[in-house]
Parts: sequence; structure tokens; C-alpha cells
Amino acid sequence: MTGITDQIKKAKSATVSMSVLPTGVKNDALSNMADALDSKRGYVIGENRKDLEDAEGKIPGPMYKRMMVDDAKVDEMVRGIRSVMSLEDPVGGTMSATELDDGLMLYQVRCPVGMLGVVFESRPDVVPQIMSLCLKSGNCVAFKGGSEAHRTIKAIFGVLRDAASSAGIPESAFVLLESRDDFKEILDLDEYIDLLIPRGSNSFVRYVQDNTRIPVLGHAAGICHVYIDSECDQDMALSVAMDSKIQYPAVCNAVENILVDSAIAEEFLPRLISSMKENGVEVRGDVRTKAIVPDINAASEEDWFEEYDDLIIAIKVVDSLEDAIDFINSHSSHHTEAIITNNMQKAAVFTKMVDSADVFVNASTRFADGYRFGKGAEVGISTNKIHARGPMGMEGLMIYKYVLIGNGQVVKDYVGKDARQFKHIRKDAECPLR
Amino acid sequence: MTGITDQIKKAKSATVSMSVLPTGVKNDALSNMADALDSKRGYVIGENRKDLEDAEGKIPGPMYKRMMVDDAKVDEMVRGIRSVMSLEDPVGGTMSATELDDGLMLYQVRCPVGMLGVVFESRPDVVPQIMSLCLKSGNCVAFKGGSEAHRTIKAIFGVLRDAASSAGIPESAFVLLESRDDFKEILDLDEYIDLLIPRGSNSFVRYVQDNTRIPVLGHAAGICHVYIDSECDQDMALSVAMDSKIQYPAVCNAVENILVDSAIAEEFLPRLISSMKENGVEVRGDVRTKAIVPDINAASEEDWFEEYDDLIIAIKVVDSLEDAIDFINSHSSHHTEAIITNNMQKAAVFTKMVDSADVFVNASTRFADGYRFGKGAEVGISTNKIHARGPMGMEGLMIYKYVLIGNGQVVKDYVGKDARQFKHIRKDAECPLR
Repeated sequence: MTGITDQIKKAKSATVSMSVLPTGVKNDALSNMADALDSKRGYVIGENRKDLEDAEGKIPGPMYKRMMVDDAKVDEMVRGIRSVMSLEDPVGGTMSATELDDGLMLYQVRCPVGMLGVVFESRPDVVPQIMSLCLKSGNCVAFKGGSEAHRTIKAIFGVLRDAASSAGIPESAFVLLESRDDFKEILDLDEYIDLLIPRGSNSFVRYVQDNTRIPVLGHAAGICHVYIDSECDQDMALSVAMDSKIQYPAVCNAVENILVDSAIAEEFLPRLISSMKENGVEVRGDVRTKAIVPDINAASEEDWFEEYDDLIIAIKVVDSLEDAIDFINSHSSHHTEAIITNNMQKAAVFTKMVDSADVFVNASTRFADGYRFGKGAEVGISTNKIHARGPMGMEGLMIYKYVLIGNGQVVKDYVGKDARQFKHIRKDAECPLR
Repeated sequence: MTGITDQIKKAKSATVSMSVLPTGVKNDALSNMADALDSKRGYVIGENRKDLEDAEGKIPGPMYKRMMVDDAKVDEMVRGIRSVMSLEDPVGGTMSATELDDGLMLYQVRCPVGMLGVVFESRPDVVPQIMSLCLKSGNCVAFKGGSEAHRTIKAIFGVLRDAASSAGIPESAFVLLESRDDFKEILDLDEYIDLLIPRGSNSFVRYVQDNTRIPVLGHAAGICHVYIDSECDQDMALSVAMDSKIQYPAVCNAVENILVDSAIAEEFLPRLISSMKENGVEVRGDVRTKAIVPDINAASEEDWFEEYDDLIIAIKVVDSLEDAIDFINSHSSHHTEAIITNNMQKAAVFTKMVDSADVFVNASTRFADGYRFGKGAEVGISTNKIHARGPMGMEGLMIYKYVLIGNGQVVKDYVGKDARQFKHIRKDAECPLR
């Protein structure tokens, strides 16, 4: 047994006591964590400076920017932890109650998933976010962050774990994986890890899926679409399309492909394309788009499957709502798609038939985000079709158990002739075993 | 592209139209299916007879019995399909609604998972069960059944698919995999299959998990425990323990290990063990159990991890509730565990700290079943800790999407100074786009 496997086993053992922590203890721990991070910011920022010095010039600019921790970033992390304190404790709530028979009550009771593995890139603010969400929801967690920010991540992790432990949280509940080998080792620990949440590149997520039998939740890509219907307010369409592309192009919920209905293409495309160009966006169009606005690049077949994460947009003319839906369902990454239309009948068809986590009507794709959705904090965005889909808050860290309370009932009384019949009456009741 | 991959792709394409089928069409199809199976029973039973002839003497007795289809079995399947008709249509319901800002409403709307793969052993009645549940919940499905019953399964599948298709259900929505190679081929189709549900042996489920990146839901083993607390009604304890073992020992929710509190062991064990023996159960005990009742076999360390599925029981003496919980959490398959106690404080500790899908108080483990839980029908029992846990009805085939309806809102207005603030007000409202 190596060090990491041993730590994961201990964390798994801690899941049971974590799952029954009183809300007050958890909130005290979160308060300690916020205070500790606040007061030890000098140490954290100092460690971050070392990481930044090593990374300078060696990693892409946006990545360098994302791993930077300054006073404002620490303030934001501290605020984030305090906001999780104010979230309702999700553990122990009764989701449903059914009277199976006289004196035989079945309750579906919410409980933590247990032991999580979270892998992320170089953003150190993921640590306080996920650690506070896990703590509040009674889960244990093992982290692996990007190696570029290893000193920063270790510093934040240490400060937060010590602060939590001084409030009575088992120290073993939180594990930091420091190397790629550590991470590879945990992929085999399906007996101890209940769920893996990888946040990273498409190829990384597929690597994880290919090398573990632990359930994996996350998103591999963000290829989002905006469809501009013929019956729309074109000013609104322009504004939403521009915001979806340029407001923050480097993220998964930015739009990559815009589909324009052929009935308005001649009128709308020149406006859209000139606005894109004015804002520094490279435009790639299909044949019909280029026929209307020749001075753009041609979009290749690969372009429709490309997540640019950059100031590049692919534009296509389609002949109907149905064509738009077909194109989206066969090209999107099932993350977020929007329709711009005044026709609520068409909006209904779009939202029902587009198979994506988020389907928006007359709003920017950039709203696809846990904070904007009101979840308080975000574990990640899921393009899986089980458990949790779309922006995932604390609810993605919860599952349930069935609690059945009887007075000696046996199944033999419910089979054969003269069998007792089940009642199966839904009740509005809380499980009494709290 | 081979035949099977082609069929799976077509089924995946059909998921969109399946997801928007009106309830009436689905119920008509179910009614057709029930009628067709009823009237074509001669054909189905005839095909089953051929399978039975081939299998006789070559497969274990219980398996032979499970694959048998007679008139009573057909009646049961027909009743099962009709009972799914009466279940509420789960598609399109609004699970939550949040006002993000003036005129910007977010709805979480229930929708089908999409394309499922279900693998099962030789029980042909799984076909009508799963097919009717998938149809009612708007899902497409590919089946692979045990090869022993291949003629029976093909006959039932054909009758049901034709009946559904005559009511307007796309024929491509249902796929039958006829060979092991077909099944291996679909493990790579993660782009088209959203969820795999294997029902089978531990080693088979692990094989599936090891060879696909498609999410897998199911249970690998059923090692269930009954803990007899010192403060209990011993008559009740005896009755529940016996029912949990002997009422139907060949299934996953039968008990394999019984833990008896040391304070009552001398009084209770002789009664329990003699009742087990009278009912033909082989008893294996730990050292302390054998010290009290010497005339039993010794339980080896492996016995505690063994799913007997047979008239064998392992019995152990424990010193406290805490010891019982520790033992269960480290030996059970997290399926179903029961405590027999009059002390509701202890019952609360047990139900909160035992990490299993079903935790029962004073009731037989054999109640762990979709029908008994009132789910109408059962897709399977999940020991996973995500998506669906325990007996899984139609709700295990559902997920949700987020529908956001605005009037042109853009994210740039919600960032920077003078940013608009989100309201995030929970509303009791239905999504208007139905």
C-alpha cells in the first residue's frame, strides 16, 4: 500500500463521520477556513509568486492569468467560502415518503455521495470552491491541480485543511494529490472513490474515462450554438450573438457556431459579420454565407466541430428550425444552445428537441454558469446525461438512501394466496430517524 | 459501419422524436403491445419450448426455471405492460423554476436520458418490462439477453416492436443485439449510447465497467446484512431474519450475514440457528457463535464477502452497534441492510451511518424491490452512488435540461461596475414551453 492509496482509504473511512456532521460544526469549519485564508494571504500570495516566476513564458497567457492569485483573488475566495456557509445543509432531507402498508413506511433520504476525486487545471481558486462545497455537503475529496500552480495549491489546501480540522473536521477527509503518478494511482481505486470529476481538456477527460471504472462526471467540450430564427428582433439577435461570442471567448459557454435562417440571411448577415469583424473576431462561413458576404474565410467541415475558445466564429445559413435542430444535435457538444425568436411555438420545439444541457430562448449562452443560475457555487458543468446535467452545484454531490421503518414485517405475508396487498400511498412526511 | 453500429446510430437519431411523443401515443403503443403479446402467446411459448429443449441439463436449475415462459408468465408480462400505461408520463415536468432577473426565467425540465443499453441474463420477462418503461419515459433502448433464451427473447422483442410501431413509435427506437460480438461492439459507442445497465454477475458487471467509457449503472453483488440489537423483540428478530434468508434465497436482496449483539447472543443464537437448520439452511459461524452453538461449520474470512444466493448463512457475534456498522460498511456490497431494535435512537444511528442503498428498521431485507417500493416496475437495483440508488423505477431513466427564457439579456450587463444584480428567486411555476 503506497502513501496515496493509504490516504484515499482513510478518506473513504472518514466519509461516514463526515456524513453525520452537525450543520453547526460544518459552518464553524467554513468560518475558520475563510478567516485562515484571509489572514494567511501573504503566505499564499508569496507561494503563488514563485509559481508565476517559474511559469512565465512557458504557458499560454490566459492560463498564466488564471493561475495568478492577488489580494482581490483572495478576497473573492474568502467571499466564496462564506457564501457556502449560507447555503442550506442538504444532508438528511426527506425527498419522498411512501406508506407501503400499515406501520411500514419508506423514506427516500438525501445523503452525500461519499468520496470524490476532483482533477482541475491551473486555477487555484477551484480548491476553496470545491473544498467548501464538499464540506457543507458532507463529502470527502481528493484533489489534483495543475502542476504549474503546485505551490499555490498546496498552500491554499494546507491552510484550509488545518482550519477545518481545528473545528473538528477529520483531517483525513481531504487529500492532495501532488503528482501525475498519484493521480494515475487513484484511477484504480474504484472501491474507495465514488465519483471522479475531471475539469480539463477533451482529451484529458477521455483519458480518465478510458482508464477507470469509477463513474466520471464532467464535460469534454463546449461547442455551443446560437440559432437566429427568421421571426426575431434582429437588434436583439445581434446583441445576444455578440455577447455569446465576445464577452469572454476563452470559456466553454461561449458560442462557436451561429446558424442564421435563410429568410433573413441577406438582411442580417452583413450586420452580424461587420460587428464581429469590428470586435476583432475572425469570421468563417459556409458557401451560402460567403455568397452574401464574400470577404470572409471559408468554413471547413472540421470548423463545425471545433471549440475555438477564441475570437473566431463559424456561421452557416439554414433553411428551417428543423434544419437548425438537426445540425445542432449532430454537431454540438450538448452543452448550451440558444434560439433567438419571437415565436414561442418555435421556441418550444427548439427547447424540447435540442438535446443539450442548457437550451436558451432570447438570452446569451454565457448565462450557462452555476453562479448565474443561482447555485451559490459551481462544482463544474456536466454534459453527461445521468446524475447531474449542466451547471452543477452542491446537488451534484448528493445522492439518497431508502430508509424503511417497520414493526417486524416479512415478505412471505405479501406473496401467494391470502397475500397482504401493498398500499403505496404517497405521504408528505419527514423521516423520523434524524 | 456494421449492422449493429448502424442500428444504434439510427436508434440514437430516434431519441429526439421519442422524447416529444404525446402521452396518448405512448399509451396506445403500450396497449397494442399488451394485446399483441396476449394474442401471440402461442408463438412465444412455442419458441420458448425450443430454447428449453436445447437448454435442458446444460444450465443450472434456477436459471432453467427463470427462462421458462408459460401462460401464467405471459399473463404476468401483459399485466406488467398495462401497469406501465397507468404510470404518470414523467417527460416535461418542471422540477424547479428560478427568476434570475426581470424577464429572465430559468426552468429545470425533466427529459429522457436518451439511448440506453440493457444487458440481462436468461429472463425473457425483462424485455417487456424494460421496453415498456423505456417507451413510457421516451427513451430508446438496445437489448442483449442471455443466449440460452435467444429464440424466446427474439420472439417477444419482435411482437412488441411491431405492435409499438403500428401505433406510430419509430421502429428504430428498439434494437435487439443477438450475439456477444454485437454487445462488445456497442461498448465503444459512447457517442451514441448514454447509459448502460448490465444485470448479471459481479464479474460481468466489472467486465463492462472495464471496457467502456459509457456510464454504467447497476449492481455487482448483493451481500446483505441483518443486525440483531440487544434491545429487540427476539420473536420479531427471528421472524425477520428467517424471512430475509429463506423466503427466496437465490436473489440479491436475501441476507448473507447475520450479526448478533453479544448481550443477547447466548439467549438468541440457539433459537436462530435451530430455526435455520430446521429450514434446511447451512449455518457458518464465527468463533464466538460456535462457542455458544458448537454444532455448526466455522465461517472463514472469505465467507463474510460471499454472496451465497443459496440456503447458507454466516453468523457473527458483535459487541456494539458501532461494531456492527463498521463490519457492515467494510463487508457489504452496499445493497440492503437491516437492524432489529426497539431503540429508535440506535435505529437512527444505523440508518444514518450504514452506507448502503437500502437501510431497514424492523423489516425483512426482501422488501428491497421496485414493485414493493411502489415504483410500478423496476429497471434494476443500483448500488452505484450516483444518479439512481437502490430499486430503480422509471425515474432512473430520466434526467433534466435547463430551459432559460429571456428577452435579449446579455451577460456583459451583469459584470463590471454598474453590473445588474441577479435576483435568484425560487418560483413555483411551470415552464411555459410545453
